[in-house]
Amino acid sequence: MVQTKFAGSNLHFKPEDILPSVSTDCVIFGLDNGKLKVLLLKRDIEPSRGLWALPGGFVLDFEELEMSAMRTLHDTTGMSNVFMEQVQAFGQVHRFPWRRVITVVYYALIKYRTDDLRAGPDASEINWFEMADLPELVFDHKHILTVTLQHLQNKVRSEPIGFELLPPKFTLTQLQELYEAVLRTTFDTRNFRKKLLKMNLLEQLDETQIGVAHRAARLYRFNPNIYQKLKEKGFTFEL
Amino acid sequence: MVQTKFAGSNLHFKPEDILPSVSTDCVIFGLDNGKLKVLLLKRDIEPSRGLWALPGGFVLDFEELEMSAMRTLHDTTGMSNVFMEQVQAFGQVHRFPWRRVITVVYYALIKYRTDDLRAGPDASEINWFEMADLPELVFDHKHILTVTLQHLQNKVRSEPIGFELLPPKFTLTQLQELYEAVLRTTFDTRNFRKKLLKMNLLEQLDETQIGVAHRAARLYRFNPNIYQKLKEKGFTFEL
Repeated sequence: MVQTKFAGSNLHFKPEDILPSVSTDCVIFGLDNGKLKVLLLKRDIEPSRGLWALPGGFVLDFEELEMSAMRTLHDTTGMSNVFMEQVQAFGQVHRFPWRRVITVVYYALIKYRTDDLRAGPDASEINWFEMADLPELVFDHKHILTVTLQHLQNKVRSEPIGFELLPPKFTLTQLQELYEAVLRTTFDTRNFRKKLLKMNLLEQLDETQIGVAHRAARLYRFNPNIYQKLKEKGFTFEL
Repeated sequence: MVQTKFAGSNLHFKPEDILPSVSTDCVIFGLDNGKLKVLLLKRDIEPSRGLWALPGGFVLDFEELEMSAMRTLHDTTGMSNVFMEQVQAFGQVHRFPWRRVITVVYYALIKYRTDDLRAGPDASEINWFEMADLPELVFDHKHILTVTLQHLQNKVRSEPIGFELLPPKFTLTQLQELYEAVLRTTFDTRNFRKKLLKMNLLEQLDETQIGVAHRAARLYRFNPNIYQKLKEKGFTFEL
């Protein structure tokens, strides 16, 4: 049997199906009102009961690594339909205190949501945390988070990633907030817009925001041809 | 015991030290007269005796993943002092026919050399192969090579990687050959030079080649400040 499709919870696997030295861990970044957050679980099992951890678990003998990431995310958080990409393997000798465990890390940047969150049986709590204000994390999960954030930051500087998080028509302020959240910095607005518009990635629309209290801002959308081209060939967004 | 430094061959480890479900594999690219080659071993053990394979082996319980890659490279090829970077983990369920093995892949792009090559005890032959003319490879090693080459190609388009392979002073032809080898294509010389010089990465020297049969070409070197900046911030070399 090979499990190549995610088919919902799989909590009832047999102990002999577990690969004891390989796990997957999931870094789920969410954008909440211009703040970059990450999804964490409070462990209700040993080792390190009471500390916060990334969602994850051991790989099963018959499932692909990607499937393992999706399954463990589902089993521990309730979330499904999160498409993740592999970051790398982390395998420091004593990263897991009981024995040698190599973990393969996957990540996603998604729209912030809480409606389908449900902590699995091994956790006492589940929550989103601001990247700027993290609790104490278990094992090497702080290091994993740091490397994965760096990976995401490189991505948004070289591919139009994250743009999927915006509505189809958006303001330049929304776009700037997305970049500021991911890169955890503040940009000079005039400079940011100038650099961005130079890429020809945006189409200015003859429309402005509706239903806002402040002066309605101009709306933009992505030029799909340029977007696709930049996605394939890459770019450097020096901000 | 934790092995964090590469200390030469370690072929005499005990069977119980082996992590049976995790290996490392090494993709060693070498540039030989403008041709991109990869180092392969002909397996003299089962499974798949007689097929060619990437250098690699099982991870030992007490060694870091990077060390495992360096050790297995040394044990199988004789090479040392090759500094590799992780690509990613490959873990398809049936990639290794006997049982589930996840392999963590490391790679390097080095100057072509044969002086320190010495096939380990599990191989009948060791050789460099042109990427354009590969023999039949074992397991998923063809797939691993494809993904790793893509990884290298993305790198040379976004970081001044590979430039370390050139002599301190070089001609634009040498630089173009390096890019053509890695990206496995041919560039229009005028266009290539124009794009390259626009990056301000090169300093034109008041020197030309010496001891060449043809007309001596102008020599260049890297501007170390721009080089460092591009290494940190990245660039897009659209060729």
